[in-house]
Amino acid sequence: MQIYRANIIFTPESRRFEVLPHGYIVVSDGKVEGVYRALPPHLADIPVTDWGDRLVIPAMNDMHVHAPQYRNQGIAMDEELLPWLQNYTFPEELKYADITYAEQMYRRFVRSLWRHGTMRVVAFASVHLESTQLLMRLLDQAGMGGRVGKVNMNRNCPQGLCERVEDAVAACETLVAEFERKDSRVRPIVTPRFIPSCTPELLQACGEMVRRYQLPVQSHLSENHDEIALVKELEPESRHYADAYDRYGLLGQMPTIMAHCVWTDGDELEMLRQRGVMVAHCPTSNFNLASGLAPVRRFLDAGIPVGLGSDVSGGHDFSIFRMMVYAIQVSKMHYQRDKSCAFLSLAEAFWMATKSAGSFFGKVGSFEPGYDFDALVIDDSELLIDETYTLLQRLERFVCIGDDRHIVARYCQGRLIPEP
Amino acid sequence: MQIYRANIIFTPESRRFEVLPHGYIVVSDGKVEGVYRALPPHLADIPVTDWGDRLVIPAMNDMHVHAPQYRNQGIAMDEELLPWLQNYTFPEELKYADITYAEQMYRRFVRSLWRHGTMRVVAFASVHLESTQLLMRLLDQAGMGGRVGKVNMNRNCPQGLCERVEDAVAACETLVAEFERKDSRVRPIVTPRFIPSCTPELLQACGEMVRRYQLPVQSHLSENHDEIALVKELEPESRHYADAYDRYGLLGQMPTIMAHCVWTDGDELEMLRQRGVMVAHCPTSNFNLASGLAPVRRFLDAGIPVGLGSDVSGGHDFSIFRMMVYAIQVSKMHYQRDKSCAFLSLAEAFWMATKSAGSFFGKVGSFEPGYDFDALVIDDSELLIDETYTLLQRLERFVCIGDDRHIVARYCQGRLIPEP
Repeated sequence: MQIYRANIIFTPESRRFEVLPHGYIVVSDGKVEGVYRALPPHLADIPVTDWGDRLVIPAMNDMHVHAPQYRNQGIAMDEELLPWLQNYTFPEELKYADITYAEQMYRRFVRSLWRHGTMRVVAFASVHLESTQLLMRLLDQAGMGGRVGKVNMNRNCPQGLCERVEDAVAACETLVAEFERKDSRVRPIVTPRFIPSCTPELLQACGEMVRRYQLPVQSHLSENHDEIALVKELEPESRHYADAYDRYGLLGQMPTIMAHCVWTDGDELEMLRQRGVMVAHCPTSNFNLASGLAPVRRFLDAGIPVGLGSDVSGGHDFSIFRMMVYAIQVSKMHYQRDKSCAFLSLAEAFWMATKSAGSFFGKVGSFEPGYDFDALVIDDSELLIDETYTLLQRLERFVCIGDDRHIVARYCQGRLIPEP
Repeated sequence: MQIYRANIIFTPESRRFEVLPHGYIVVSDGKVEGVYRALPPHLADIPVTDWGDRLVIPAMNDMHVHAPQYRNQGIAMDEELLPWLQNYTFPEELKYADITYAEQMYRRFVRSLWRHGTMRVVAFASVHLESTQLLMRLLDQAGMGGRVGKVNMNRNCPQGLCERVEDAVAACETLVAEFERKDSRVRPIVTPRFIPSCTPELLQACGEMVRRYQLPVQSHLSENHDEIALVKELEPESRHYADAYDRYGLLGQMPTIMAHCVWTDGDELEMLRQRGVMVAHCPTSNFNLASGLAPVRRFLDAGIPVGLGSDVSGGHDFSIFRMMVYAIQVSKMHYQRDKSCAFLSLAEAFWMATKSAGSFFGKVGSFEPGYDFDALVIDDSELLIDETYTLLQRLERFVCIGDDRHIVARYCQGRLIPEP
């Protein structure tokens, strides 16, 4: 049992911060046993790790990120989605056939997540089995968790990224055999890249993998008008893009996360709601690729779970704290046009990044009893100009203007995670 | 005479980077004498400061920032413009009647500019003469330059921020006497806060100051619908917001910079063009205060000069590099809705932040002959994953994901500027 003392902040509900000034978190077997304003008498003999005036908050979850686009972070922001894939993304992903290259990059990728306080990810790897296994092992060795998908794709892409359906199925079996155990920190996820990259046969096979191994699903949905038009052309019988996934058993039959959903509305939105599909909102990427402003308030109003994603390298920034700022900004552009569409509060953005996102991994993202102790210790003393900021103002300042320099400790499942 | 060697990047035109790999900049008497791919023979005997593989770029100019809102950076992002002024901004600015408080904050403010590579500013101080003088002296002592405005305001604000017109005029005389010399690095600028804060008498007096002392003007223009409606009510005879300034001689009679211009179009846009008014585009602030997406492409198409502003604390970030990213993102949201409205290239955003903005101060923001040597040396080695990035990709990565850690030297008017 460990006891930590600090200024504790988390969001048990979407609109409410729980704040315990100089409170105590009791952790047992990697899980939160409870938070206390004063230490209960029966715990009085256990030594307390005192973080002084620092903040302790749940760790970040990045719900959509492309690991093999690591090298392209912060470049090539001058194209929209489809040409950007052809000209920048696919050429880089081709390199991951080379396991040596993959190892160099994936080690850096895992370190970048760590630096920015992200302890869990839902990540796309590339189409290559070996380098996907490597990424999963590196994340696991680092003590970090999440779901990693070997990408499935076999059309509208360069030769070297096209797989055969039978190889896709065999690769899935291999990954399941190595990683799909209840206690694994890092587990597989079925990952059809998106409808334009997958033939009906491959989508069918993906649906089969989901059913057979009871695996979750991640993909992209309704990011961009050209993409949506292309999907309509490729799947003319589907009512909409989400329905195209659904027809293959890839929309909520098992837990499903769909990135972007910028143009999701009407019947498509209703389908996400009914199926409990989580939206990975990637506001920076949606700006950079000129996709648009995702209607997050409408998702929340409908009860659709939402997490935040960096979408590196469509997004240029690994920081999920910056994604909170961007998510609020996007919501303010909706609000500006329609004052009945309330913009996101800091509590809501924080909740999306922590408890809402974390629900994809189990009990993750909060400090309520039974939750995994995934946490960051924030030393914001450099950002404090005077003594009169409230704890929530200190959090807001860290979210807006802090960076990796201010994260002084990271925990995942109760373990202190050193730099990988 | 000094000679520097590095990877030189600047924008002599809005759409064109000039890139000299391992080139030479010759600086004489604080001004650029020339840039060279190889050192001319007649300079062969002069010692060269070799920055190796680092980048050297023009320093940043922040064309709109509120110095006395320093403490509020990164908080209070849950209000729109008018209530935000009442609830957060004015209470903080009231404290600047206390010169001791002002000194503590303004020292930090100047250091923040420096850290982020901003060597010139067009800043709002507060209504207080003494603390404005102090800020100007601190900037000057730091070796940095710009225009600083003692704010003029006398209505719709708390008692302690309301000035008498005769005091406003006397304060202007004092500032002109101390600072308005041709060789001053830091000079005054007439600064009516905005129409709602100034009675017709005060606006009249501001126009008088401009004429009498040949001073430039800064203010806010068409930021927000409620504000625009209020101006219409207060100045019913004006055709639009810009016209309201114009009637008092505050719109281009001398060099003028107007922040925001989010909703400027039609006749108002044409008036800015005719008067050569510079727009200070503050994209982060426009998001945070739910103002909207400023039509920068239309300003550029019309030949209206545009610079970038952090607008701290409406904006939460001092980095003009981040403002470039945000400016491109805003332009992509316009492009997403109207494909004929081309989004900003990195070259254009960089040019706005350097040569376009710098024109407000004279020959500033470029490395062409005769320009002041305002420069930053960037060590991006930590950001380099391999040897294959082009110099422009290295610049793009620094702009997107670099920070103050990567700025290793700062020059203003040829002088190395130490941390203030």
